[in-house]
Amino acid sequence: MNIREITVTPVAFRDPPLLNAAGVHEPWALRTIVEVTTDEGLTGLGETYGDLGHLTKVREAAAALIGLDIYQQNQIYHRITTVVGDAVSDLHGLTGVATKEKSIDRVYSPFEVACLDIQGKAIGRPVSDLFGGAVRDAVPYSAYLFYKWPGHPDSPDDRFGPALTPEGIVTQARLLIDEYGFQSIKLKGGVYPPDQEIDAILALREAFPTHPLRLDPNAVWSVETSIRVAQALDGTLEYLEDPTSGIPGMAAVAAEAPMPLATNMCVVTHDHLPPAIAQRAIGVLLSDHHYWGGLTRSVQLARLCETFGIAVSMHSNSHLGISLAAMTHLAAAVPHVTTACDTHTPWQDGQDVIAPGTLRFVNGAVPVPTTPGLGIELDHDALATMHEQYLKCGLTVRDDTTYIRRFDPTFPTTRPRW
Amino acid sequence: MNIREITVTPVAFRDPPLLNAAGVHEPWALRTIVEVTTDEGLTGLGETYGDLGHLTKVREAAAALIGLDIYQQNQIYHRITTVVGDAVSDLHGLTGVATKEKSIDRVYSPFEVACLDIQGKAIGRPVSDLFGGAVRDAVPYSAYLFYKWPGHPDSPDDRFGPALTPEGIVTQARLLIDEYGFQSIKLKGGVYPPDQEIDAILALREAFPTHPLRLDPNAVWSVETSIRVAQALDGTLEYLEDPTSGIPGMAAVAAEAPMPLATNMCVVTHDHLPPAIAQRAIGVLLSDHHYWGGLTRSVQLARLCETFGIAVSMHSNSHLGISLAAMTHLAAAVPHVTTACDTHTPWQDGQDVIAPGTLRFVNGAVPVPTTPGLGIELDHDALATMHEQYLKCGLTVRDDTTYIRRFDPTFPTTRPRW
Repeated sequence: MNIREITVTPVAFRDPPLLNAAGVHEPWALRTIVEVTTDEGLTGLGETYGDLGHLTKVREAAAALIGLDIYQQNQIYHRITTVVGDAVSDLHGLTGVATKEKSIDRVYSPFEVACLDIQGKAIGRPVSDLFGGAVRDAVPYSAYLFYKWPGHPDSPDDRFGPALTPEGIVTQARLLIDEYGFQSIKLKGGVYPPDQEIDAILALREAFPTHPLRLDPNAVWSVETSIRVAQALDGTLEYLEDPTSGIPGMAAVAAEAPMPLATNMCVVTHDHLPPAIAQRAIGVLLSDHHYWGGLTRSVQLARLCETFGIAVSMHSNSHLGISLAAMTHLAAAVPHVTTACDTHTPWQDGQDVIAPGTLRFVNGAVPVPTTPGLGIELDHDALATMHEQYLKCGLTVRDDTTYIRRFDPTFPTTRPRW
Repeated sequence: MNIREITVTPVAFRDPPLLNAAGVHEPWALRTIVEVTTDEGLTGLGETYGDLGHLTKVREAAAALIGLDIYQQNQIYHRITTVVGDAVSDLHGLTGVATKEKSIDRVYSPFEVACLDIQGKAIGRPVSDLFGGAVRDAVPYSAYLFYKWPGHPDSPDDRFGPALTPEGIVTQARLLIDEYGFQSIKLKGGVYPPDQEIDAILALREAFPTHPLRLDPNAVWSVETSIRVAQALDGTLEYLEDPTSGIPGMAAVAAEAPMPLATNMCVVTHDHLPPAIAQRAIGVLLSDHHYWGGLTRSVQLARLCETFGIAVSMHSNSHLGISLAAMTHLAAAVPHVTTACDTHTPWQDGQDVIAPGTLRFVNGAVPVPTTPGLGIELDHDALATMHEQYLKCGLTVRDDTTYIRRFDPTFPTTRPRW
């Protein structure tokens, strides 16, 4: 079952002005859609980042994989190592350092997912069955809250409205929970001084007394600030994500923090696992198949974490339905993933490249597709529209910092900020 | 694709009087053959230990799995956890302690292998393709040398003859290498005082200047003796296997030994990995899908070892062709397995439950089967004969110590012995 053709399509979709430690989301989010077609006419889908440096490598990889058998993942991975060469960095820096291994894993991931989609279709089984079968009928996700402007500058306010205060964050939480039924809440922090973000968490606790809460300042705090915030939120947070940068810093915080620390920044490739484990830096790994080398390697990663007593949840960047389907199959088939995963789905606000109807949220959880493969179908018209948007939007990389500096020229990137 | 029937058949085959730290192999080796049949009529094969306590659990598990889907491995594993209950020990003690987790993994393994055999057959692919495809065409094995008596007491000498001196060991090595073409050599030690075993290794080095050499005394040496032997064999051994018992002891030896230490005794279940890694006790893990929970979990284990810079090779007990096929597919699909694996195949001396012709040795390596599933077929006549042998032989557990004491009543089991 050999690869006859691979189509790589960059797309753009509207994104609200979500604030984070690096700046603010630009008006368009970029993704790359990968369609793999075999000589037998089966097709599989993958989704990955849209940044140009990465897109270029994905295109080179696609050309290099023609003719390979979709089951020969070892060979496909090896072929991609020869394509990637050096590390490919991203500008936003919110998923940790770029290394060569991580770059290979990032380029490999959409092809692996697409091949698994095909394998599932070939045998009439959902992708989760390729990993031992779903152990849960639905995968819970968290309400992913952001401080945000009311709308992009020079544009009308969007329907989500502003969230610039603790009260605004609670209002946003109510909106997302009303619409999706989320049972857990994550706040993207690192935007305001820590005391304001502590207040936001305390306001969420008051408004949602039983929802597990998480806070993620993307490593803009010092060790001292991190410890102070952690202790101020004792008993309130399920876990604290990446309060400070680096494994030694995280370890210093972890030693004093009353709750587990989670990361998708200081442990982002296999080389980081031994020192993070030796230093007891983290209690939760926020895995992400987009840079951990696809679904199979993510299952292996989860098993490693289970061995070392590290919980596993899932990180999210802005994404579309192909990624949501992949994340859902993965989380469904790994018994060790027991907490809600992150998703940006609400911020898509209905935009997607997949045909509607398959993926939905019920009480904050996505029922695991039971149809073959990922269980989704590409909407070719939507893909064409989003590709047009990509061509017209003028963006080729995600760069939250440059964008926020158009409106706030003194926006600081010194770290730690607080 | 649901399990309609499972047949569990204990078998016995003739085994030469191979000496080890626990005693000597009895005249019959015991194994259990598992045949899984689906409602669609596909069959899959698994092979596991024959000891009665284990066999009993395998039979209970078989009954509990009827009706389950062969893709639902998470469910199958969970079902087996409920069957196994407490830890099931073995008497020979050559594969480390019995724990509940290890017992579950041991019972689960043959069913997982059989289900993968079926999955491969269902899609017309070799089992190695279920793990990303073979990265090597043939899997190298080592010549597994044993001190041995010329034959079992009260029986004629067997064709392998005696090996009770360094010269006898070299003669045995020549025989096995002539017949199989092995490119690596492993000596089972722990039988004679260490200086005699050092002499045997040095004699092997002289006779086979370029073959990597290994020595495995099954943890009967003290830390001090282990360090002395390790230093005496500096530059001679590829690795030293389980010189002493326990993770702290192995760590103490590893700190002074010039070569890596390997184990299939102090790290035999996931609970052992964190302390062994923290203490730098081992450089090579001798994995074994029979007690690491089947092939999928063994692939995950290899990935974990790769992350921590631990090499992976493979351990062997007396086995038949189903296990050899499974080991070969596994080692073929894991890039990280780069050294020769262990096998007892020569000591079977042609006895098998599988039809001849598929598995063969070429230059000490088994070409990876390319036909669907494991690529082997059960020889039902041979199975019936071996089952008859099981019923007649009078053995229900492997107990090397009781057997040797019939001839050497003072055989010691104190540890360390030297």
